Amino acid sequence: MDRRDPLAHLRDRFRLPEGLIYLCGHSLGPPPRTVGARAGQVISGEWEADLVAAWNRHDWVELPRRIGRRIAPLLGAGEDEVIAADSVSVNLFKLLGALLLRTPDRRAVLVEEGNFPTDLYMAQGLARLLEESGATLRLTAPEDFESSLGPDVAVATVSHVDFRTGRMLDMGALTSAARAEGVPLVWDLSHSAGAVHLRLNEDEVEFAVGCGYKYLNSGPGAPGFLYVARRVQDTLESPLTGWMGHASPFDFETRYRPAPGMRRFLAGTPPILSMAALDEGLRTFEGVDMAAVRRKSVELGDLFLRLAGERLAQFGVVPASPADARRRGSQVSLRHPDGYALMQALIARDVVGDFRGPDLMRFGLAPFYVRYADVRDAVEALRLALVNEEHRQARFRQQKLVP
Amino acid sequence: MDRRDPLAHLRDRFRLPEGLIYLCGHSLGPPPRTVGARAGQVISGEWEADLVAAWNRHDWVELPRRIGRRIAPLLGAGEDEVIAADSVSVNLFKLLGALLLRTPDRRAVLVEEGNFPTDLYMAQGLARLLEESGATLRLTAPEDFESSLGPDVAVATVSHVDFRTGRMLDMGALTSAARAEGVPLVWDLSHSAGAVHLRLNEDEVEFAVGCGYKYLNSGPGAPGFLYVARRVQDTLESPLTGWMGHASPFDFETRYRPAPGMRRFLAGTPPILSMAALDEGLRTFEGVDMAAVRRKSVELGDLFLRLAGERLAQFGVVPASPADARRRGSQVSLRHPDGYALMQALIARDVVGDFRGPDLMRFGLAPFYVRYADVRDAVEALRLALVNEEHRQARFRQQKLVP
Repeated sequence: MDRRDPLAHLRDRFRLPEGLIYLCGHSLGPPPRTVGARAGQVISGEWEADLVAAWNRHDWVELPRRIGRRIAPLLGAGEDEVIAADSVSVNLFKLLGALLLRTPDRRAVLVEEGNFPTDLYMAQGLARLLEESGATLRLTAPEDFESSLGPDVAVATVSHVDFRTGRMLDMGALTSAARAEGVPLVWDLSHSAGAVHLRLNEDEVEFAVGCGYKYLNSGPGAPGFLYVARRVQDTLESPLTGWMGHASPFDFETRYRPAPGMRRFLAGTPPILSMAALDEGLRTFEGVDMAAVRRKSVELGDLFLRLAGERLAQFGVVPASPADARRRGSQVSLRHPDGYALMQALIARDVVGDFRGPDLMRFGLAPFYVRYADVRDAVEALRLALVNEEHRQARFRQQKLVP
Repeated sequence: MDRRDPLAHLRDRFRLPEGLIYLCGHSLGPPPRTVGARAGQVISGEWEADLVAAWNRHDWVELPRRIGRRIAPLLGAGEDEVIAADSVSVNLFKLLGALLLRTPDRRAVLVEEGNFPTDLYMAQGLARLLEESGATLRLTAPEDFESSLGPDVAVATVSHVDFRTGRMLDMGALTSAARAEGVPLVWDLSHSAGAVHLRLNEDEVEFAVGCGYKYLNSGPGAPGFLYVARRVQDTLESPLTGWMGHASPFDFETRYRPAPGMRRFLAGTPPILSMAALDEGLRTFEGVDMAAVRRKSVELGDLFLRLAGERLAQFGVVPASPADARRRGSQVSLRHPDGYALMQALIARDVVGDFRGPDLMRFGLAPFYVRYADVRDAVEALRLALVNEEHRQARFRQQKLVP
């Protein structure tokens, strides 16, 4: 399978330690081969060489938009529909806040509680801030989300791919259901952008946020992005009205006037070093067909689940991810009561996934650098760890916190 | 003066192009000599070497607090009173929002209109977001600020050092005046941190934000910081309740609970590359006495203004900065009707300051790398440009936008 993989050459675009099977791209992607040189260029060739003049000479001011244009094709979006800025958390606040402002007669913020927790927390903080206007936070179980889309909901947010199980929603169908109820829906694409085949325009998605440091391979805490469909961009006022989102940021007017288009979602001065690393991470997508990425991702996931069924079920390992690839992102999760210790044992065997309580082992299957043989070897390593009862060893049981 | 300068050795901590007089540290500080190596270390020695495990192994999670501990002594603050995060704009929103939440019976946000525009805009966006709760934005002229501190003001914000003129306020006196009116005052230290001698605790300051990329020399768009006095930290709820500000971020609880202390002011995942550069910028302050920095800054400013008076006044150049050093930050601004073209002519003579409309030439006098001779040479270059009427040359008159 690796020999006939049309994407096999992409692995060379990254630096991965010899002998390591890295199945943690859903948390932090590996460094692109060129990112060190790019950082050096920004520091020596731009900042040092040109000092303050570098803002113009190297067009740092436009970096958020230039990066947006690189992200757009990965989302099935127009190039003026995406911009890079801040963190996923802060970007979600901008969209939720703008949508609450746009709909004063609806006050509920509906959040699917399976979202990554920071999404829940940001919505909670926003509802708290707007409490006096009647804003409320409504958390729902995943299975109740769609039926909770009602006439009092100002805005709803949901993750396309669930960070725990890799479950992927039908984006077109849910967007359409929300629209039927008049509810703007903000998609969190953190666990899908760069790993699954997104078609935001085709699915008539209006709002989304996403993450730079997972499948976009752009480094720890890389800035996030926002997507807003062209036709509704100018209906929104961001609540975080920083100077970079002003129509004329360098005219130093006393009053804020929003820039046209996506630039209105910028707030403060962008962190150029981290932005440049994001730009470089996105360069690894040059010339890559996302449909082919998705095909490989599905095959990796199907293989992983099939081998896990054949070789691990007898040890009490249970799949937590959908068997149907159409409902699964680029991640496979397995349950085991000793999942934490098992994952530590796996890491000791140079197979890196991660663990989420109470019992989930997560494996990110990034098609850019994960090989079919890696999947086979990871399952075999897990089988050996179980055979040898390594998860009972004290050294693997002591929990440490990781993001 | 340079020969007897006890801080002269600090210039070696930076990379500055040979022959250039850089008087623009109030906009973008130059790179510390070690920042390239630090970025390389983060990329190769941490991200590449340890991938996701680097979050723990290199303690990236604690970087915002570790940086806060480096900033604290520059502010005259306790080490648990400062944290690095996001941008100045976003950090100001957090504090203004938290203070509006704390005082539901007061609704005005008072802003001195001489603040850097992003501060005005962020306050405007917050007031707009909370319009239904009666929140309003009140902009005042600098001279009316103190008398506008009244019983309906929920929170006020002001810049310690004015970005246009370098005018510095009496921090202790104004803080005390605001307290007498029951108004929490948020100081913007963007143009003072690292350049003047701050004593936040002594002046009983409760709230401040500041910038990493000016006198902290930490790179374009470096993250900003927040300061909150210890005794009031736990009275505030940040409106941007991201997971990094949660009491137990890695427990993935459904509900947000604020972390104790300054960590509650974190929102999303911090951009580690830009954070590491900030950490490295702050290392240039190791072993430096801020009182000595201030003494040199005052001498540089006094010298600049004296020479400008002697040599430039006859050409219609007028000082815009206070003559009294106690009321002046680490910047000198000069007015001239052709200020823009004159600054371009100066830059062509390898003297870099910047221009703000309509007629201000700004010169940042960062004591870490600006020499007394640089001040003499800058004034002389400006005199020669005037003598030669270089500001009348078309090539210097075409305006370009710069941050």
